[in-house]
Amino acid sequence: MLNIPDSEHQRIVIIGAGFAGFNLAKKLAKRNFQIVLIDKYNYHQFQPLLYQVAMAGLEPSSIIYPLRKAFQRNKNVHIRIAEVQSVNSEGKKVETSLGTIYFDQLIIACGATTNFFGNKNFENLTLGLKSLPESLTLRNAILDDLEHALMTPDYELRQGFIDIVIVGGGATGVELAGALAEMKRYIIPKDYPELNEKEVDIHLIHGGPRILMGMSEKASSKAHKFLEKLGVKIELNKRVTDYDGTFVSTKDGDRIRAHKVIWAAGITGNKIDGLPDNVFASGGRIRVNQLNQVEGFEDIFAIGDIAYMANDDFPNGHPQVAQVALQQSNNLAYNYIKQKERPFKYKDYGSLATIGRNKAVADLPKLKMAGFIAWLLWLFVHLMSLVGFKNRIFVLLNWTWNYMTYDQSLRVIVKAAKHVHQDDD
Amino acid sequence: MLNIPDSEHQRIVIIGAGFAGFNLAKKLAKRNFQIVLIDKYNYHQFQPLLYQVAMAGLEPSSIIYPLRKAFQRNKNVHIRIAEVQSVNSEGKKVETSLGTIYFDQLIIACGATTNFFGNKNFENLTLGLKSLPESLTLRNAILDDLEHALMTPDYELRQGFIDIVIVGGGATGVELAGALAEMKRYIIPKDYPELNEKEVDIHLIHGGPRILMGMSEKASSKAHKFLEKLGVKIELNKRVTDYDGTFVSTKDGDRIRAHKVIWAAGITGNKIDGLPDNVFASGGRIRVNQLNQVEGFEDIFAIGDIAYMANDDFPNGHPQVAQVALQQSNNLAYNYIKQKERPFKYKDYGSLATIGRNKAVADLPKLKMAGFIAWLLWLFVHLMSLVGFKNRIFVLLNWTWNYMTYDQSLRVIVKAAKHVHQDDD
Repeated sequence: MLNIPDSEHQRIVIIGAGFAGFNLAKKLAKRNFQIVLIDKYNYHQFQPLLYQVAMAGLEPSSIIYPLRKAFQRNKNVHIRIAEVQSVNSEGKKVETSLGTIYFDQLIIACGATTNFFGNKNFENLTLGLKSLPESLTLRNAILDDLEHALMTPDYELRQGFIDIVIVGGGATGVELAGALAEMKRYIIPKDYPELNEKEVDIHLIHGGPRILMGMSEKASSKAHKFLEKLGVKIELNKRVTDYDGTFVSTKDGDRIRAHKVIWAAGITGNKIDGLPDNVFASGGRIRVNQLNQVEGFEDIFAIGDIAYMANDDFPNGHPQVAQVALQQSNNLAYNYIKQKERPFKYKDYGSLATIGRNKAVADLPKLKMAGFIAWLLWLFVHLMSLVGFKNRIFVLLNWTWNYMTYDQSLRVIVKAAKHVHQDDD
Repeated sequence: MLNIPDSEHQRIVIIGAGFAGFNLAKKLAKRNFQIVLIDKYNYHQFQPLLYQVAMAGLEPSSIIYPLRKAFQRNKNVHIRIAEVQSVNSEGKKVETSLGTIYFDQLIIACGATTNFFGNKNFENLTLGLKSLPESLTLRNAILDDLEHALMTPDYELRQGFIDIVIVGGGATGVELAGALAEMKRYIIPKDYPELNEKEVDIHLIHGGPRILMGMSEKASSKAHKFLEKLGVKIELNKRVTDYDGTFVSTKDGDRIRAHKVIWAAGITGNKIDGLPDNVFASGGRIRVNQLNQVEGFEDIFAIGDIAYMANDDFPNGHPQVAQVALQQSNNLAYNYIKQKERPFKYKDYGSLATIGRNKAVADLPKLKMAGFIAWLLWLFVHLMSLVGFKNRIFVLLNWTWNYMTYDQSLRVIVKAAKHVHQDDD
C-alpha cells in the first residue's frame, strides 16, 4: 500500500518523473497541492546524455538526480517508487505494484519507450537506449565483447564481437555512431593493441532517404559527411527485416554479423491500461486538447512524449522532445497555479545534434550552423539543462578531461551482485 | 582459449589484480618479461573505500581503475578477464574459465574473501563488502529498503527494513558503522521526512573484548566513544549464531530484526585448487618462504593477503592489509629485476581508521592520535593511494562537496538491464 497521508489539499498524482513530470512536480511543490510522484526509478534521468554513459564517457550519477534529494524541502510532495498497472478513471484511482492510490487530478507523464514494431526478435535481442539501466547494459556489452574478441582468432567470429549495427538515423543513432567511431579511433588502439581497430565496423542503417530527418537538409548532409569522415558506414533507404542474435538481415538480402544491434528506429508511448481505446492516437500517444486534458476527461491530463496534441501548426502532434515536455508542464503548472485555462503554444528554440569532437549541427530559428561553434553550443545547452549544480560541474570536468586526453576512464564492467532478500520481495 | 602470443621472454602469470598483483605487474611491465595478468574484473579496485561506494558517498569509477588503461603502453602485458579454476604445478599451467595458460613463473595474488566459517545462512543471506559489485548491492539494498519502510505502517515490520546489523568490529565494520550513523543523522531526516530517523538502529556486534583489535587500546577506546556518540549500538563479546533472512540470533538469546546484515567478521584466502594440501595454513592462506615462494615450489609465488609468511616477528603471518601486499610485490619485483634473493622485510607505517566527519584514529610508529588531525591524515593517505590522477581529483571533489553540504548526491538505485546475448555466454 502506498501509505499517503490525508491532506486538506487536492491530490495531484503524477505518473513519471521525466522532463514533463519532474518539472511539473517542481513547479507545484510549494503550492497548495498534495503531490504524489510515481516512477519506477528513484531518480530523474537526463535522456539526451544516456548515450555518453553507454560509451563510458560519463558516470550514471552525473546525468541523473535522486528524486528525494530534489524534493527534500517539500513536505507536500510524496515520492513512490512503483510501477503503474492501470488507471481507473471512474473510481479516480491508479493501481500500482505497491497498491492503490486515489487522485483528484491525474497527470500522465510516462513518456515513450523503444518501438520494436511488434517484432519479438528485435525486442528480445537488440539493445535500447531509453533508460539508464539500458545504457549500462550497452556499456557492459561493448566492453565484454571486446574482451571476447581478443580471444577469438577466427576472423568471422571475431567480427560478431567487434562490429556494431545501429538501426535508425535519428539524433540517438547519429550521436551514438559518432561516439562509437571516436572510441574506435582513440580508445581501441590504446586499450586493445592486440586487436586491429580497422576491423571494427560501425553500421548506421536508416530507413529514410537522409539521417536526422527532424532537422534541416543542411544539418543532415553535414552530419552525414562528419560521420563518413569518422568511418561510420551509413546506409540509407535500407530496411532491417530480422535479427537472430548473430546476423542482422536487411530487405535487400544483406547479412551483417553483430552481437550488438542498437535499436534506435522509433519510439512508442509507454502503455497505460484502463483508458478507453479512443483516446489513443498513432504511436501509442494519448489524445489531449489544447489544455493537455485527455480527450473526454476533465481531471486527467497527459504531457510530454505521451501526449498527442494535434492542431493547425502540428497536425500530427508535437515532436517528442524535451522542449515540448518542459513547455507543456510549464503551461499546465501555470493553469493550476493561476486557475486559468491558457492553451498550450509551443515555441521552437531549434535543435542540435553532436557527432563528435568539435563537430555538431544546429538548426536555430534564424540560423543553421555546423562545426565547432555548433558543438560549443551543444555542450553549453546540455550542461545548463542538467539538474543540479554538482552534476554540471562533474560533467564539465569529465568532458574537459576526455577532450584533453582523448580518453575516457570509465571503461569498467560493473554489475551489482545478487542479494537474496532483495530478489525475494 | 587465452590467445597469448609466443614470446622470447619468460612468461610470468599473475593471478589477481589487487594491490599485490597490480603493483607487481606495474613494476615488471617495462622489463623483459611477458606478463599475463588474470582477474575476474577488468579493473583494479581500491578496497579501503568500498564502504563509501556502498554509502553513496563515492562513485564506483572513482575508486577503481581500468586494467587496460593502466597498461596501455605496455605491449608485453596481456590482460585476460577470466576466473581461475586450478593450478597444475607439474604441467606448469593454469586452467581458467577461458582455457589453459602455461607459465614459466606463477604469482598467486588472488587475495582474501569474506569468511562465513561454513555457515550457509550467513553465506547466502548476509551482505559482504569485499568487492565493488558487493558494495553496489549494499547501496541498492539500503535505498530499496528505505523505500519499503515508507510504505510499512506496522512498527515491527518497518524495523526490519531500517535497522542494520554489522557483524565484526574491525576496520571495515567500524568505518561502515560510522558512515551509516552519519547517513541516519544527516540524510534520512531530509530525504525521508515521512520516516522517524530515531527508529533507525545501527548495531555493531563484535565477538572480541574491544573493537579495532588490530590497533592500539587507545585507538579502540576512542573509536568506541566516537561511534557511541553517533548513536551506534555496540555490543562486545557477543557472538552471532544464526540469521534466517529476517532475524539475527545471538548466543545469549537476543533476536534482532534486520533485512540487512553486513558480515565483516573475518576473511579467508580465495581458494586455489590444485596445490598440495600441506601448503595451506590457517585462514586459507598459502605458506611461503621469506622470498614469497610457495613451500616446495621454485616457480610459484604467493603475495598479499593470500600469502602466509611466518617468521620470528610475525609467527602467525603478516597482517592482511594493503601495505603488506604492496611491500611484498615490491620486494618480489626487485628480486626479479635484479635477479636477487632478498628476503621480505615488513616495515609498518602504522594504521588508520575513520569514524566520520572530523573523526579518525591513527596509530603511527611514534605517535597515537585521535580526532581531527587523524582524520585529515586519513583523508590524505587514502587520496594519495588511489590509482590515477583523475580519481584523486574526483574523490577530493566529492569529499569536499559532501563535507560542505552534509549530503551525498549519489543515492540512486541503479541496476543494469538484462541483455540476452551477454547472459548466454
